[in-house]
Amino acid sequence: MERRAGELMMTKADHLTLLADIGGTNTRVALAQGTDMLPETIKRYANAGRDALEDILSDYMTAQNVQDLAGACVAAAGPVRDDVATMTNLSWVIKAENIARVTKAEQVFVLNDLQAQGHALGYLAPDAVREIVPGQPARADAARLVVGVGTGFNAAPVHEGPGGRVVPPSEAGHITLPCQSDEDFELKRYLEAKHEFASVEHVVSGRGIERVYAYMQGQDEATVSGADILAAISRGDVTARAAGEMFVQAMGRVVGDLALTHLPFGGIYLVGGAARGVVPWLEEFGFSAAMHDKGRFSDFLQAFPVFVIEDDYAALHGCAAFCQSRIDAQEL
Amino acid sequence: MERRAGELMMTKADHLTLLADIGGTNTRVALAQGTDMLPETIKRYANAGRDALEDILSDYMTAQNVQDLAGACVAAAGPVRDDVATMTNLSWVIKAENIARVTKAEQVFVLNDLQAQGHALGYLAPDAVREIVPGQPARADAARLVVGVGTGFNAAPVHEGPGGRVVPPSEAGHITLPCQSDEDFELKRYLEAKHEFASVEHVVSGRGIERVYAYMQGQDEATVSGADILAAISRGDVTARAAGEMFVQAMGRVVGDLALTHLPFGGIYLVGGAARGVVPWLEEFGFSAAMHDKGRFSDFLQAFPVFVIEDDYAALHGCAAFCQSRIDAQEL
Repeated sequence: MERRAGELMMTKADHLTLLADIGGTNTRVALAQGTDMLPETIKRYANAGRDALEDILSDYMTAQNVQDLAGACVAAAGPVRDDVATMTNLSWVIKAENIARVTKAEQVFVLNDLQAQGHALGYLAPDAVREIVPGQPARADAARLVVGVGTGFNAAPVHEGPGGRVVPPSEAGHITLPCQSDEDFELKRYLEAKHEFASVEHVVSGRGIERVYAYMQGQDEATVSGADILAAISRGDVTARAAGEMFVQAMGRVVGDLALTHLPFGGIYLVGGAARGVVPWLEEFGFSAAMHDKGRFSDFLQAFPVFVIEDDYAALHGCAAFCQSRIDAQEL
Repeated sequence: MERRAGELMMTKADHLTLLADIGGTNTRVALAQGTDMLPETIKRYANAGRDALEDILSDYMTAQNVQDLAGACVAAAGPVRDDVATMTNLSWVIKAENIARVTKAEQVFVLNDLQAQGHALGYLAPDAVREIVPGQPARADAARLVVGVGTGFNAAPVHEGPGGRVVPPSEAGHITLPCQSDEDFELKRYLEAKHEFASVEHVVSGRGIERVYAYMQGQDEATVSGADILAAISRGDVTARAAGEMFVQAMGRVVGDLALTHLPFGGIYLVGGAARGVVPWLEEFGFSAAMHDKGRFSDFLQAFPVFVIEDDYAALHGCAAFCQSRIDAQEL
């Protein structure tokens, strides 16, 4: 690494790294020193009117007056393959090489948002992680699972491998919606009529609860927002409560299936606005009963504790931790 | 490591390791030198009449006259947690410490059978791996997925992490059976009447095809063996062909869901007798169509090639590779 004469040599924990969390509407950018995300450096940018992520990053670099970055890590709410992310509702294509050009960072990493959430585990404030379903004790290196129920649905298992943490990407929101009751199957047919295929995300997401409510009302189109549905549940509205129950039980069923798939004895961590929105009613609406309802494996499912993460900057923390772990590996 | 005077020092590739593949009926035991399983050392033992795995291993050690083992790795067809495996249809409890006592191996590892299959990828003869559904090219470090359809059902993703290969355990056979057609949903209700819950394994397994055939015949109990059903399919029997079609499409649907869950751009590898049994009819019965049938993600699913592994000793190869990788890591 070339440095200007007179500049202090920094230890690796002093390295500055750049982090970005790209959602459908906004992008949050911040700096980190080592694994510590620096909260005072967080800035939020609207995506609207920007042609590319690089616009935002170069504005940020100028505003913060940073030049010498050891690394950059961006988390994108869309599929990532071979360091390229595509955004579902945005025309941006997010490429490591473009980010490297604009940030001059020595190493650039592109994760999906759930991978970033997985890398955040262990780096969050204790009061940002709340247990909602108890489980059984596990070894420190036990697998964990992050489940994101926000605008969309996705998940990421967290494995502590021999060379460090491995958080593989997934597109788990697009698998077949699991159905249990006759009404579940009717909802599936209702969704197929409009979307050709009924996936997990069609129900277990922010848009999903709106669809379930429309289905309950016998309407073709979802016209009531998730926030209004939550408010109606609070008021005791019968249709809203029925929709909330169907939504929460679908979420429980999916979380149970993902638990059997990934065996996260170290815990399941729910993130995202739609999951956080229904937390007050999870037990009342039958979340853990639906999660555990797997025939002769019902007892087995009791092993997995479920937590909710209440930290809007968790993905940024995860980007910081991941970026630093890769810089450390490079320096070994 | 203490050695007798006059004994040659061996390089690490000369280390002997012990491998065992424990199925429901038989246990196969072999030795390996480095990552090479030694085919001439394979012995098969019936499990019946044995109180524990250690009986078999100590007989094998005596027969082979081996003493100085650098490691031992056993693969068990049952859930593994914290180096302890329980067998679904056998009273044995397989513990690393018990195996260490009887084998005197310096390091002992317990995997489930699908993890062993995952560690075998890259160590099999080229003619033992046959492509059955084409996909798209991928990076050498792309994730892969092994799907086992034998007596039961399970899967294991294969991730090439920074410190080597990571193959997490799973109990994917016990998740909710995904249903598409009205007939799928009827089959689900038929299975629930007997098994309380309808899981993937209730249909997509050797026992599963027997159940589907019984359902097609309107019978409560499965009385015709999988081998007889395959023979009837060959003869063109209408009921057997209908059962084969339902079985193959369920397998395709499940493989597609697991592909979205694990994103195995490096390929999906089918193993196990029930999968191998229906290979001749996979396309005719609609396997890839069912695998790809995920609405707007149908094109995305075309990326994943599917292979079948035709090697009865693949799990032993995987045990050898895993054991050697751990010995190498220890010696770094």
